[in-house]
Amino acid sequence: MPDHIYKTTELVGTSGESIEGAVENALARARKTVRNMRWLEVREIRGHIEEGALTQWQVVLKIGFTLED
Amino acid sequence: MPDHIYKTTELVGTSGESIEGAVENALARARKTVRNMRWLEVREIRGHIEEGALTQWQVVLKIGFTLED
Amino acid sequence: MPDHIYKTTELVGTSGESIEGAVENALARARKTVRNMRWLEVREIRGHIEEGALTQWQVVLKIGFTLED
Amino acid sequence: MPDHIYKTTELVGTSGESIEGAVENALARARKTVRNMRWLEVREIRGHIEEGALTQWQVVLKIGFTLED
Amino acid sequence: MPDHIYKTTELVGTSGESIEGAVENALARARKTVRNMRWLEVREIRGHIEEGALTQWQVVLKIGFTLED
Amino acid sequence: MPDHIYKTTELVGTSGESIEGAVENALARARKTVRNMRWLEVREIRGHIEEGALTQWQVVLKIGFTLED
Amino acid sequence: MPDHIYKTTELVGTSGESIEGAVENALARARKTVRNMRWLEVREIRGHIEEGALTQWQVVLKIGFTLED
Amino acid sequence: MPDHIYKTTELVGTSGESIEGAVENALARARKTVRNMRWLEVREIRGHIEEGALTQWQVVLKIGFTLED
Amino acid sequence: MPDHIYKTTELVGTSGESIEGAVENALARARKTVRNMRWLEVREIRGHIEEGALTQWQVVLKIGFTLED
Amino acid sequence: MPDHIYKTTELVGTSGESIEGAVENALARARKTVRNMRWLEVREIRGHIEEGALTQWQVVLKIGFTLED
Amino acid sequence: MPDHIYKTTELVGTSGESIEGAVENALARARKTVRNMRWLEVREIRGHIEEGALTQWQVVLKIGFTLED
Amino acid sequence: MPDHIYKTTELVGTSGESIEGAVENALARARKTVRNMRWLEVREIRGHIEEGALTQWQVVLKIGFTLED
Repeated sequence: MPDHIYKTTELVGTSGESIEGAVENALARARKTVRNMRWLEVREIRGHIEEGALTQWQVVLKIGFTLED
Repeated sequence: MPDHIYKTTELVGTSGESIEGAVENALARARKTVRNMRWLEVREIRGHIEEGALTQWQVVLKIGFTLED
Repeated sequence: MPDHIYKTTELVGTSGESIEGAVENALARARKTVRNMRWLEVREIRGHIEEGALTQWQVVLKIGFTLED
Repeated sequence: MPDHIYKTTELVGTSGESIEGAVENALARARKTVRNMRWLEVREIRGHIEEGALTQWQVVLKIGFTLED
Repeated sequence: MPDHIYKTTELVGTSGESIEGAVENALARARKTVRNMRWLEVREIRGHIEEGALTQWQVVLKIGFTLED
Repeated sequence: MPDHIYKTTELVGTSGESIEGAVENALARARKTVRNMRWLEVREIRGHIEEGALTQWQVVLKIGFTLED
Repeated sequence: MPDHIYKTTELVGTSGESIEGAVENALARARKTVRNMRWLEVREIRGHIEEGALTQWQVVLKIGFTLED
Repeated sequence: MPDHIYKTTELVGTSGESIEGAVENALARARKTVRNMRWLEVREIRGHIEEGALTQWQVVLKIGFTLED
Repeated sequence: MPDHIYKTTELVGTSGESIEGAVENALARARKTVRNMRWLEVREIRGHIEEGALTQWQVVLKIGFTLED
Repeated sequence: MPDHIYKTTELVGTSGESIEGAVENALARARKTVRNMRWLEVREIRGHIEEGALTQWQVVLKIGFTLED
Repeated sequence: MPDHIYKTTELVGTSGESIEGAVENALARARKTVRNMRWLEVREIRGHIEEGALTQWQVVLKIGFTLED
Repeated sequence: MPDHIYKTTELVGTSGESIEGAVENALARARKTVRNMRWLEVREIRGHIEEGALTQWQVVLKIGFTLED
């Protein structure tokens, strides 16, 4: 296993559909600028409520990626 | 942004289907008596097991709502 | 309520589909060797990323089961 | 298992005798106004000291009860 | 020290001025409906930002009060 | 002090009497199958409530024991 | 309420009898050298096991006392 | 509510005056390079002491801002 | 940077005015007996309430100081 | 990435030499009975002191391994 | 002490040799792009296992550095 | 096992060499004034950075020692 160095960054993904969808939306945005993403960790799951119903999942996640040399 | 005061309350929603369903069931019950709900935070995700299979998701959540003056 | 003694064990379930699927996969494996499972608690939700997309949910969970006398 | 919704409330019970006594005193008070209590969780154990001796146990506990439909 | 039972409730106070102000605003609202408040604990300190400047402090606090018999 | 390796296991003991009783019941069960137990740590204290009264203490504990070579 | 300054100190009390006994033994020792003790907080509950049975409760506690001017 | 993606960054603001001042100083620096800041969370409050007096408040805070598409 | 050894001590400062004031009051008392204080960390912020209003801030803080050789 | 299920187990490794040595001693014991170990996480680092000197490092670690089907 | 603003970033350093080596490898990479690093905090210590032996230490660390004006 | 009472104290040891060295330096200083030290727990591992390189390990540790009667 090569001795890579990794960096982590924290994002909040959102979705009107599901917790998984919020995570995937965050990844879709991140891959525009971050290469070599390797893993993620869910840190918090929150939701926005309007008129008594959940209208948006908000998932705080940490993403780890390999730093190029 | 008006200087509202918010109150939080902790519920446990349950569902045989999914984590999201357990949250939505909790909200459906809460909106019978609580007005002006604004956000929620998932605190714990648990499950009930019968005959070796998960039969019920149990999601502990905190709901925040605006206190009327 | 009888005074049973319970034991807990920690597993990591994985799934390419969903968080719930990862939990169910862990239970499916556990019930081959563990009897009398009663509850579970989700401890961590992680994901494996390849080519900028999540390819596997990894859910760390604690399972509680009744110890037979 | 029916898909009930539960609510939790946090109390602090006190007793000059024991930790268990402080919990039972909190339950005795709670059952005057709360129906359908199901479980409790001890969150903190504290004590009041006078003249170098513990004179009161103070136990912070969360009580869960079924919300009626 | 009489063996009172206490209840806690969680509020979020807000203020454009200061952290202390957000707490005091929460107390001002609480005393309209809660009697016998005894202590509070600050749980989280957050802020709302607009145009690059903090416009509102948001302080999550737990308030403890004596339950009457 | 010999360089032993220890293993820990998590149990939940129950008792209708007391917190200490729940721990002792867990140990009584554990010693049927585990040798060389050395220490325990209480992780959570919970209770089951029926008809407004606590009917069972549930204590989650971690037990450490020496692994034989 | 006078604006006292308090200091806290951490002790581990032990007892062969009970959790409460371990706390009281710690206080009995502390009052030989510490004046003006006001409150305590239980931080950890552990036990020593010999021959498969708990022989000693070990309770880590923080004690707060008024500093004299 | 549009499905934005947010990023968080952690800063430490300092001030010789107050906790609020340390937060405002961090925001003043951040707005030179970060657009669309939305919220902040205080994570730690520390202080530097010289000659027995506090000379600098150090506040660790997490700032959330909207990622542009 | 010389390899000093530091010791930490936990105090609770109080003030009727502000959170900062409670910290400064704790430092004012500490410098009567502790030399070479270097840093502090705020651990908890609490308040005492009378007649529905906060009358005293109580700030739990850890102070670090250099141990002389 | 195949959808394996993993199990974790908690051990305490000890060594008179170093923190790394304590971890390696735990692994050396574990590989006698556990196959397919994949990762470990250090949970606590403790030490035993005799005559004022550290004589044994004690490292609590969680080991994850693949469950065979 | 000048009122600098600091930023923190989270890296994961790896090494086949030691925990210290993993931290130093992370720093060696970081100093290619980050100036004015001041302190670091170890957040997690993990290891990769192959054939029953630890082949790589993985240390999650937070690095703090001064932001230039 | 005699029913001793233990006290804990928190120190920060430093070393230019290693984590273990920082702990040993703290113990070397502590044994000048503390008798009957029994165990230690590592609470935090930090480092001081100069010119892009770690120049000092800083280890926060809690030491437990027997109180004499």
